[in-house]
Formats: sequence, C-alpha cells, structure tokens
Amino acid sequence: MLYCGVCHSDCHVGLNDLHSTKYPFVGGHELLGKVVEVGAKVTKHKVGDHVGVGCIVDACLDCPTCKDGDENYCMKGLTGTYNGTRKYGRVAGNQENNTWGGYSGSHVVNEHFAIKIPEGLPLEKAAPILCAGITLYDPIKHWGGCEGKKMTIGIVGLGGLGTMGVKIARALGHDVVAISTSAKKEAMAKEKGATHFVVSTDPESVKKMEWTCDLILNTVSAKHDVNAYLPLLNKSGTIVQLGLVTETHTISQLPLVFHRKAIAGSCIGGIANTQECLDLCAKHNITPDCQMIEANQIDWAWEQLTGSGNADGIRYVIDIKKSLANESFVPK
Amino acid sequence: MLYCGVCHSDCHVGLNDLHSTKYPFVGGHELLGKVVEVGAKVTKHKVGDHVGVGCIVDACLDCPTCKDGDENYCMKGLTGTYNGTRKYGRVAGNQENNTWGGYSGSHVVNEHFAIKIPEGLPLEKAAPILCAGITLYDPIKHWGGCEGKKMTIGIVGLGGLGTMGVKIARALGHDVVAISTSAKKEAMAKEKGATHFVVSTDPESVKKMEWTCDLILNTVSAKHDVNAYLPLLNKSGTIVQLGLVTETHTISQLPLVFHRKAIAGSCIGGIANTQECLDLCAKHNITPDCQMIEANQIDWAWEQLTGSGNADGIRYVIDIKKSLANESFVPK
Repeated sequence: MLYCGVCHSDCHVGLNDLHSTKYPFVGGHELLGKVVEVGAKVTKHKVGDHVGVGCIVDACLDCPTCKDGDENYCMKGLTGTYNGTRKYGRVAGNQENNTWGGYSGSHVVNEHFAIKIPEGLPLEKAAPILCAGITLYDPIKHWGGCEGKKMTIGIVGLGGLGTMGVKIARALGHDVVAISTSAKKEAMAKEKGATHFVVSTDPESVKKMEWTCDLILNTVSAKHDVNAYLPLLNKSGTIVQLGLVTETHTISQLPLVFHRKAIAGSCIGGIANTQECLDLCAKHNITPDCQMIEANQIDWAWEQLTGSGNADGIRYVIDIKKSLANESFVPK
Repeated sequence: MLYCGVCHSDCHVGLNDLHSTKYPFVGGHELLGKVVEVGAKVTKHKVGDHVGVGCIVDACLDCPTCKDGDENYCMKGLTGTYNGTRKYGRVAGNQENNTWGGYSGSHVVNEHFAIKIPEGLPLEKAAPILCAGITLYDPIKHWGGCEGKKMTIGIVGLGGLGTMGVKIARALGHDVVAISTSAKKEAMAKEKGATHFVVSTDPESVKKMEWTCDLILNTVSAKHDVNAYLPLLNKSGTIVQLGLVTETHTISQLPLVFHRKAIAGSCIGGIANTQECLDLCAKHNITPDCQMIEANQIDWAWEQLTGSGNADGIRYVIDIKKSLANESFVPK
C-alpha cells in the first residue's frame, strides 16, 4: 500500500450511521499500491504494477448485473472493501468473514477488482478517483453523457465528489452548473471548470438557471431538501443522489409528473467503468485536489468531513509509506 | 361530439383538489367526434373524419420541447382541454380565457391537436385511449419499450389506466406484472393479458417477483406508499407515477442509491405519440373496457371514481348523441 484516500462514507460506516457496522472496523476504499506478489493464475497484473482498489473487492460475477459490468449492483450482493462479508471466496477476510479496508500497510485482492493506474496519473492523487471519480463518472455515463451529445450537467455540493464531477463532466464536453448553498464557492467552482454557478438558497439565482439541467448529480451526504433542485432540471431530467443520506426525503409527485422529472440514485460504479474513468482522468490530466496526511491525523480528517464539511473539495489522502516510517505507527 | 370519456382527473380538477380550478368548470378530456366544419387553412382533417381530442388543445409549438413532439411538457405551458388558459390563440375560450372540456355537444379545436381515429377502432370505445391509453403508452416508449427489446413492465393499479397499460405493454411484446392490493383481481388481470400478478400488501407475493421489473407504471391516484413497489424493480429500474397524487411521498434514498433505481413521473403524452398509440390499439384490437352512460349519470360516475375506486378497470363514456336526444338535457 502506498496511499489511501479518506471518504465521507468511511465516517458513515465507521460511526455506524447505517446501523450495520461490524467492529473492529478498518476504513479506506480508495487504495493505491504496488503489486508485490501475484497468485499462479493471475494474468491481469504483474509484480511492480501500480494498481488501485475501490469500494468493491468481490461480487458473484455470475448474475446478469455482474455480467453487464455493473458489479456494484451485483444481485447477490457485492462484497465491500470494508465492512463487507466474504462469501464468494475471492477475498481475504478476518475470522468473522468481515473485510477490512485500506487504512493498512498491505492488501490482498482478486485481480478482477484491481484497476490499472494508467501512466501519467500522479500516484499520490490517483487514489480518490477510485471512489470520488467513478461515483461521478458512472452516472454521467449511464444517463447518456459519454455518447458525444453535449448535455448540461448540474453538480450539487462542491466537496471531494462534486469538484471531481465538475472536472469529469467538463472533460466530457458538457456544460456544468455548479450548485451550492454558499455564494462564496463561485470562484472556486469556476476555477475547477464550472460554466455556471447557482446559489441554491437564492430563488433569483435558481430562477436564472431554471429548466437547464439534463442531469443533476447530487453529492450532498447530509440531510437536505432535494425538492430545492427540481426547478433546475430540464424536461425529462434526472437528479441522481450519490451521497448516502439516511434521512428520508419528502417529495411532491407533481413536479415529477408534470415535467417527466426523475429522482434516482447511483452507487459508485463497475470495474470496467472505473478503469475508463481512470484512463479519462489520465488523458485529461484530471486529479482530485488532495491534501496528504499521515495516519495519526485520521481523527482530525474525519472531524473535517463530519463537521463543517469538506469546504474546498479537498480530499484527504493517507501517505501510508510515510506513516509507516513514523515509528509510533509501526505495528508492534 | 359523439362520445366523451370520464377520467379520474376530471374529478380532481372539478373538485378543486389542486386548488387551481376556475369555475364554471366543464370536464372531459377524452373527446371523440365527427368533423362538421373546417377552417380555410386546415389540411390535416376534413369534414366527415372521425377525430379525437385528448388532454391538450394548445401549446407554444415553438420551444425545444414542443419541437421534440412533447407538447405535453411545453416549456411555456400547455393549454389543457379544460381549466386551461387560452394564450397562444389556437383555441376557443370563454370570456375569462378558460377552456372548457368535452362534456359538451360540440367542440372547436386547432387541427394540430385533433387526432385521427384509425379505421377499425370502435368509436364508442376509442375516446379513453386519448388519455388512459397515451398516458401508459408514452412512458413505455420513453423508457425504451418501443425499441424491440423485451422488458418486464409492472403495472400498479388495475383501473381504467392500469388495464390499458396491461394491454398495450403486452401488444408491444413485454412481460407484464400486474400489481394490486387486492388478490381478487388476479383472474381479471390475467384475462387482460398480465403474465404475472403481485399482491402488493403480501410480502411473500412481492418477494416472488423481486428484482424483475425494468419499469413500473404506477397508476394509483390516491394517497399510497410508493416504497412498497421498489423491491419489484430490477437494477436501474424506474417507477413512474402517472396518477395525480397531491400528498407527498416519504422516500428513503438508500434503495435508490444501492440499486440505481429511480422514481419518476409522466403526464399523458405528445400529439404524435397519441396518434401512434391509437394506431397501435387499432392494429392489435385493443380497446378500453367501457361502460356507456348518459350525461345525467355523471354524478354517479364521479362517485364511482372518487369512492371505492374504479374496481374493474371500467372506463365510463358519455354517449353524447344519446344524451342530447334525452329532452331533459337539451340546452334551453
């Protein structure tokens, strides 16, 4: 292991927000490392390759969904990189068959679930693409954004996910409407590539961009009112929830019915699409905005993510090599 | 005017459920008649033709949405056949510029919004296709059901809309899962063509058809819990609200996120698609199950629709010629 990104979902699961956490828990599903050993039948990767592992370390690989390349929606249930349950036999687990994530010095993974890190991507910034990148890329592709037709894509929330969404949508040639509750983020959003900016709490600002978005990717992972964004959708537009929000939404059906709008969800992405996303990032020189931390700063990093929010779209990345060189973190 | 269907929406608007009804109100948006006079520039229809008028009598015809053939989602606002506002100049209105519907002896309409009734469709049964038919056909087409690929389509509610949905989906070659709260409807649903039947209040029945529906068309127009149907959706499936439900839905985002499911809405359909729908019905000999009434039975018919529900999918149709022959209904 060389690097591991820190995702808001690590906090959700680590803090048992979904009431399904199995302790002891080890977070981290944006893993980047160098292959040090391969099994006898491995053909996809070789010793010395740089590879990444995202949120999935196993799936049945046999259901129609897996065969479509959507292992992330495996009908028998994927095995998550952490807090997952080992059941298909392709992944190491602890004694309780639970999986442990990438806040770790090493990781064992089946070749199918390891993604090649393409030449040209700086290793220390590639890890978050495995979650924050693919989470935005996959719905853009699913809702038609990789078919060459120019769309207008809204991005709600300009944290680690949202800023990656702005960059990826722009690289694919789309207009991007950055949407935030904070007017202060306009300059930052435009610097990342946003073509328009909406302050979602300002009716005038919303009004100006009414009916424009073919797709809105909603990265907010705290309680919020999704109805506030519906006026921005064009006819037949879809707003896609990406953040894990445990609170229910109260939704009026009338805007959906009267303008064929949809509220959907999307969860990371499949393995082939993750490779496509990394390749796209390498080609267009897209990297997340990362701040390197050491393992002993993890509590601080989680406080940033669960507290006031990841205000500037910075993704924290644990420098594992450096952390392990720090004596207090060497396992006894 | 020869016939006019009676739709649950007539009651919604007539009873001011949406708080926007302009009285005096004349219902009816499933009109069928014979052309008795045409304007000098009319080319689409001629005297003697049988034509129908659905829910739309005007739209801007100039916005991108109208140009796509989706007049039903006109960005400047369609003019509804009743309780609409005359603003584009193609439609007659009363002194307050409000439109009045088809519970009427005659109707004046712009040629664009009059649909040809194809040969072979029994006139007395064709009227409800203009609303109950197109309302089901349009979302099936939008979500990929006219592209030749076999889908599994769920239909919630087996009233006037739902039974038309079963017939249309089957004519298009799809498997159909009829979904009802009442186990008693199974035989009727299968007689209409349903391939499967689910009692939505029975967890065992739902469990058997879990993960099967690519699309669910939800015709329920009373308060209900949409979450009950989400387990029936396949990965990437969409449930489409068609009935006008004024109560909000409380929705957990997690099933949407974890399986890329979507909750959408759809509202009738465009003029070209309405013609396609009528042509499909003529080709496959599809007609709604109609019960002829006279104008003096309209209060009774509304009571059936707003009370215990339109239990057997019967669509009430006013026989206007017969009603007018009844002396007590001849305008003084």
